[in-house]
Amino acid sequence: MGEKLMSQPPSQRITLKRGKHLADYDPSTVRSVLDSGFLAHVGVATDDGPIVLPMVYGRDDAYMYLHGGVANAMLRAGRDVEVCVTVTIVDGLIVARTPLHNSMNYRSVVIRGRAERVDDESKVLALKIINDHIAPTWDDSRPPSDEDLRVTQVLRVPLDEASAKIRTGEANDEPADLDGPHWAGVVPLRTTWEAPVANSDLVGDMAIPAELTGLAGRDAHP
Amino acid sequence: MGEKLMSQPPSQRITLKRGKHLADYDPSTVRSVLDSGFLAHVGVATDDGPIVLPMVYGRDDAYMYLHGGVANAMLRAGRDVEVCVTVTIVDGLIVARTPLHNSMNYRSVVIRGRAERVDDESKVLALKIINDHIAPTWDDSRPPSDEDLRVTQVLRVPLDEASAKIRTGEANDEPADLDGPHWAGVVPLRTTWEAPVANSDLVGDMAIPAELTGLAGRDAHP
Repeated sequence: MGEKLMSQPPSQRITLKRGKHLADYDPSTVRSVLDSGFLAHVGVATDDGPIVLPMVYGRDDAYMYLHGGVANAMLRAGRDVEVCVTVTIVDGLIVARTPLHNSMNYRSVVIRGRAERVDDESKVLALKIINDHIAPTWDDSRPPSDEDLRVTQVLRVPLDEASAKIRTGEANDEPADLDGPHWAGVVPLRTTWEAPVANSDLVGDMAIPAELTGLAGRDAHP
Repeated sequence: MGEKLMSQPPSQRITLKRGKHLADYDPSTVRSVLDSGFLAHVGVATDDGPIVLPMVYGRDDAYMYLHGGVANAMLRAGRDVEVCVTVTIVDGLIVARTPLHNSMNYRSVVIRGRAERVDDESKVLALKIINDHIAPTWDDSRPPSDEDLRVTQVLRVPLDEASAKIRTGEANDEPADLDGPHWAGVVPLRTTWEAPVANSDLVGDMAIPAELTGLAGRDAHP
């Protein structure tokens, strides 16, 4: 706890107002949540109102990487403008004695910043980072062609303005409710990879790559 | 498929530009995805840039309901302004012969609209709808007090402008890659509720409510 108190918010706009005691601005905590998740929800303000879309991602120590087709309207709208990238992992349902104290156990990260297009020689590395975030299949695949790369765009968002919020434990009820007749506790949630299923158009007897057989039965959000 | 072709986008701004063949504007499909999920990512444009936060939700035939503390900055910012509410369920990792054809199997819904505060007699019903969306624990709990209700606000977002996007099946590779040496297939993902764990401060031998024992072992995203 002592160390967490030393973790200072990097900016006002990323500082948690609600649930302050659950906030953690330590970059190592932010990275740990990003490494445990694989789906981001990316928000951009447009003339038609905000839009939020799900995207896979990867990260290094400085940036979160996102990718999509060059015609991807979201990525076009998000280029060189402010975005918000949020990753949430749900770990359980909190059932309190009274419904307005119900909650979830979860780990989340919110990143706010300006998205920049990655168009130089680091683009291929960024794509490998995104691809290998869940399972490192890049090196076992047919490398991307020039055309594959041409029709794919990559954005990066700095990790400078990020906050983590983590709730663990059990239900927090009002003192007056503790000796009442109502149950309280947690229903844990587990997300698991299952055994890989081969494509129907596979030619011959091809072994499943080891990095995928290794996923089977594994917690998807360690 | 014939029926899906008849489903027309309700507005331009909710019409999918990418992955059009995966789009479904049928309200029954939208509702089905919302019923299978339980976590929304809600986006609002603020003076500090867009913000996206995770929230639980409930729905009826006309509205998506969200709730939070009265001091919740997100809900305050979202009141009477345009929001985007996105629900995504990941069903599997698609591994193609080449990494830029990798994808996910998923079900998602995007709702765009103006959030309105629910402050009349329907507020309690909206809170019950949100609470009972995962497990109907409301009737087995201590009812909310006037103070509980005072410190809780509810927003609703019309379901009029919503689109679903659903990807199922296996990897779609380039014809030229089909007889190559690379594996392709799907790694399914399963999200499961586990057995409820009682709070450490429970008094006496209290039975776990049936609606929670019934969750254990169940697919969280049916």
